[in-house]
Amino acid sequence: MKSFLLFPGEKTDGLIGVSELIISTAVQGMLFCLLGAQPLLVVGFSGPLLVFEESFYSFCRSSEIEYLTGRVWIGIWLVIIVVLTVAFEGSFLVRFVSRFTQEIFSFLISLIFIYETFFKLGKIFMDHPLGSYASQTLNQPNTALLSLVLTAGTFFIAFYLRKFKNSAFFPGRLRRAIGDFGVPIAISTMVLLDYSIKDTYTQKLSVPDGFSVTSPDKRGWLIHPLGSDGQFPIWMMVASILPALLVYILIFMETQITTLIVSKKDRMLVKGSGFHLDLLIIVVAGGVSALFGLPWLTGATVRSVTHANSLTVMSKAVAPGDKPRIQEVKEQRVTGFLVAFLVGLSIVIGDVLRQVPIAVLFGIFLYMGVMSLNGIQLTERMMLLLMPPKYHPDHTYVRKVRTLRMHLFTCLQLVCLAVLWVVMSTSASLAFPFVLVLTVPFRRFLLSRIFTHREIQCLDADDAEPSIDDRESQDEYTEMQMPV
Amino acid sequence: MKSFLLFPGEKTDGLIGVSELIISTAVQGMLFCLLGAQPLLVVGFSGPLLVFEESFYSFCRSSEIEYLTGRVWIGIWLVIIVVLTVAFEGSFLVRFVSRFTQEIFSFLISLIFIYETFFKLGKIFMDHPLGSYASQTLNQPNTALLSLVLTAGTFFIAFYLRKFKNSAFFPGRLRRAIGDFGVPIAISTMVLLDYSIKDTYTQKLSVPDGFSVTSPDKRGWLIHPLGSDGQFPIWMMVASILPALLVYILIFMETQITTLIVSKKDRMLVKGSGFHLDLLIIVVAGGVSALFGLPWLTGATVRSVTHANSLTVMSKAVAPGDKPRIQEVKEQRVTGFLVAFLVGLSIVIGDVLRQVPIAVLFGIFLYMGVMSLNGIQLTERMMLLLMPPKYHPDHTYVRKVRTLRMHLFTCLQLVCLAVLWVVMSTSASLAFPFVLVLTVPFRRFLLSRIFTHREIQCLDADDAEPSIDDRESQDEYTEMQMPV
Repeated sequence: MKSFLLFPGEKTDGLIGVSELIISTAVQGMLFCLLGAQPLLVVGFSGPLLVFEESFYSFCRSSEIEYLTGRVWIGIWLVIIVVLTVAFEGSFLVRFVSRFTQEIFSFLISLIFIYETFFKLGKIFMDHPLGSYASQTLNQPNTALLSLVLTAGTFFIAFYLRKFKNSAFFPGRLRRAIGDFGVPIAISTMVLLDYSIKDTYTQKLSVPDGFSVTSPDKRGWLIHPLGSDGQFPIWMMVASILPALLVYILIFMETQITTLIVSKKDRMLVKGSGFHLDLLIIVVAGGVSALFGLPWLTGATVRSVTHANSLTVMSKAVAPGDKPRIQEVKEQRVTGFLVAFLVGLSIVIGDVLRQVPIAVLFGIFLYMGVMSLNGIQLTERMMLLLMPPKYHPDHTYVRKVRTLRMHLFTCLQLVCLAVLWVVMSTSASLAFPFVLVLTVPFRRFLLSRIFTHREIQCLDADDAEPSIDDRESQDEYTEMQMPV
Repeated sequence: MKSFLLFPGEKTDGLIGVSELIISTAVQGMLFCLLGAQPLLVVGFSGPLLVFEESFYSFCRSSEIEYLTGRVWIGIWLVIIVVLTVAFEGSFLVRFVSRFTQEIFSFLISLIFIYETFFKLGKIFMDHPLGSYASQTLNQPNTALLSLVLTAGTFFIAFYLRKFKNSAFFPGRLRRAIGDFGVPIAISTMVLLDYSIKDTYTQKLSVPDGFSVTSPDKRGWLIHPLGSDGQFPIWMMVASILPALLVYILIFMETQITTLIVSKKDRMLVKGSGFHLDLLIIVVAGGVSALFGLPWLTGATVRSVTHANSLTVMSKAVAPGDKPRIQEVKEQRVTGFLVAFLVGLSIVIGDVLRQVPIAVLFGIFLYMGVMSLNGIQLTERMMLLLMPPKYHPDHTYVRKVRTLRMHLFTCLQLVCLAVLWVVMSTSASLAFPFVLVLTVPFRRFLLSRIFTHREIQCLDADDAEPSIDDRESQDEYTEMQMPV
C-alpha cells in the first residue's frame, strides 16, 4: 500500500519537499484569503494531489523526462484550462456533483487521514522493532512503543477535551476556552512528555532551516521551462495537457466539493461563494507556482470544514434535549490569512518545531480524520446499517425512505468508496480523478433508475438537516495545514 | 507511599502469599454462598485488611514475635468478639453508619483500585527504565512501555464495550452479550497481543504450582498456637485482643457497609439481608482460617456491587429520555459459589493463568475502580462542585438543599476522605479502623449541628433515587476476586 499524506518529499526524492510546501501553502493561502470569494476555504496540499505527484514523478523518471520542467508545462496548461473553463462558465458542471459524490469524496479524505496514522505508526514499528537491542543508535528499542503512546495520548487528550467542551462542567466561557484549545493542549502536553524522556529517540518534525529549497544540489528556486539543459522534448510540452487535465479534475473536484460542503444551506453562511473566482485563483496560483517548483494546492476538505466549524457559534438558548442550532458563522478573512501567515512563519521558528515528535502529529491526523467523519451523512447511514430500525433517529431520509432501500443506497456509496480507494492505492492511481468523476454519471443515470425520484430527493438532498452536530463534530484546529 | 492491593505476599515476606489467598477466597467464598444470608455479597481480601497485615507483620518482626502464631490468637479473639456481638445483637450499631460514612468508605476503596494501577505501573517504569540497554535480561527496555500499552488497552476495550452495551448498535441480545463479556474480551485481546510479542518481557501473573503453601521452607499448613518452638509469650495471647479489635472493626465496617450498599432500597432486592448471620460466618471462618495460616476476608465492596449489578435486569419499556428502571435482581446462590469455585480452580489451570501479564490486570483494576466510582452519590456531588448550578440535575438533594450547603457537605466528606487516605498510607495505618469509625460520630453530632434536619435528610438519605445508572455504572465482571 502507498502512503498519501503531506509528505511529498519522500515521493519525489526531495525535489519538492517541506520547504516548497510551506512556502506554497503560506503564499497561496494568504493570496486566497485576500482575493478569494469564500475565504472560509482553506487551501492546502491533499492526498489525491500527492498520489498524482508520485505517479507523475515515477513516470518522468522512467521516461527520462525532467520532473520539475514537466510540472512547469502542466502549470501552463492548467492556466489555459482554467481560463477556458471560467470563460465558458464551466463551473456550472458542479451542479451535477450531488451529495452522493461529495460524501464519498470527503469520507475518502477522512479515511486517508486515519489510514495514514496507522500506516505511519506501523512503519515506525517496522523501523524500530521491539526486540532490537543491538545497534543502539538506529533501532532504538523504545521508539516504537513511545511513538504509539504519544499518538494515542495526543488523540485521546484532544478527543476528550473536545467532549469536555460540550459537557456541563465549569462556567461556559472557561469550558469553551479549554475545549477550543484542546488540540494545542494535547500537542504541548505530549511534546513536553517526549521532551522529558531524554533517553529514548523519537523522530521529530523536519522543518527547513531558513529560506532554501529542500535539495539545493538538485534544483534552484526558478525552473527553466526548457529544462536545465534546454533539451526538454517539444512533444512533451504538448502532451502535458493530459496530466494537466488530471490535475485540473482533482483541483476542480476537491475545491468545488469543499465549497459545496462549506456553503451547504444547513451551515447558515450568509455570504455566498464564488465557484469561478475561487477556482481561477487557486489554479492560476498553482500554475504559476509550478514555475518556481512549488506544489499546486487545492481547497482542502477536512481543514476547510474544520475552519468553518470553528467559526460557527451555536445558539445557547435551546430547549432541553434539543440539538443545538447554528446561530451565526463569523465570516471574515482574518483567520484564514493568519493561519497561512503562521505556516510561513514556521520556517523562522524551526527550532521550536523541531522539538515536536511526528508521532504527536499522527495523533492529530487521527483526531482530524475521526472528527471529520462525524459531519458526514454517509457515516450516519453506515452506522444505521448496524442498528436495528427501532433505534433509527428521526431524519428525513429515515422517515421517508424504506429502511432496506436506504441501506441499498449506503451500500452503493460504500462500493464506490472501495473502488476509489483501490484505484488510489494501486498503480492505477493516475486514473483516480477519472473514476471520481465517474461517480457523477453513476449517480445521475444508474441510481435514478434504481431509486424513485422521491427517495433520491431524501437521500441525496442538498439541504438535509444540519449534519453538523456540535457535540462530536469537527474541531476548530485550523493550523493543520502545516505540512510535515 | 504504600501499595495496598491484593498482594499480601510482598508484605509478609511470603508467609501469606498467593496460594493462601486463593485457598482462603475459594473455601470461605463457597462456604459463605451456601450459608450466608445475603449471597450476593462477595467475600474477599481488601485494601484495609492488607494494610493491617502489613502493619502487624512489621510489628511482630520488630518485637520478635511469630507473626503467624500471633494471627492464630487474633483469630481466637475474633471468634469470641463476634459471638459476643451477635449474642448481644451488636449489629444494631450498623444503623448509625449512614450514607455519609458508606460513601466515604466505598469511594476510598475505589480510589485504592485506581491509585494502585498507577502505582504499580510506575513501579514497572522504575524497574525497567526506558534507557536501559545494558543488562538485557533484567531491565528489558520495552517492558515498561509495553505494560503501559497493555494496561491502557485493557481499560479502554473494557470501557468502550461497556458503553457499547448501552448504545443502539446491533440487535439488543447480541449487543448485551458483547457488552457483558467486555472484560473477558479485553483481557483475552491484550493477553493475545502480549503473547504475540515474543521478544519483550512482561511480568506475568504468579500462580502457585499445585496445592502447597507459598513458602514451604518457612511454614506448614497448620500453625501451632504456641508457636513453632512452643515459646509464644502468654502476655501476647492476651494482648492479641487489641489487634483483634482492629481487625474486627475492619471486617465489621466493610462487611456491613457492603451489605448496606447492596441491599439499599433503590437496588430493589426482594430478599432481605442478615447482618448478624453474615458477620458471624465471615468472622468465624476468618478466625478458623488463621489456624491454617490463611488470611481472613471481608465483604468486598467493589466486587459485591459489581456482582449485584451484573444480576440486575433493567426494564426495557422506558419512555424516551427516561432513565432505565430496575426490573428485578436475579437473587440466587449459584453465581457467587461458581466464582469462588473458579478461583480455587485457578490453581489447577495455573499454566494458562501464567500467560496473563499483570499489566492486563492493572487495566481491569483501573476499570473496576473507575466504574464503581460512578455508582456513588458522592462522586456525583463532587462533579456538581465543578458545574454551574444551572446545569445541576434534578435530584432531591439538588432541589431541596441550597447549592452552597450541598457543596459544604461534599467538601466535609472530602476532608474525611483525605484524612482516611493519609492515615492509611502513613505509619499510622493501624489507626485506620478507628478513624473510619470516627466518621460516624462526626456525622451524627457535628454535621447535625451544621446542617438542618431537612438538609441531612436529603443529603444523607438512605433511600435516594437509584444511584445505579446502567449507562455507565459498574460491570458484571465478578471474577475479580481472583488474587494476583
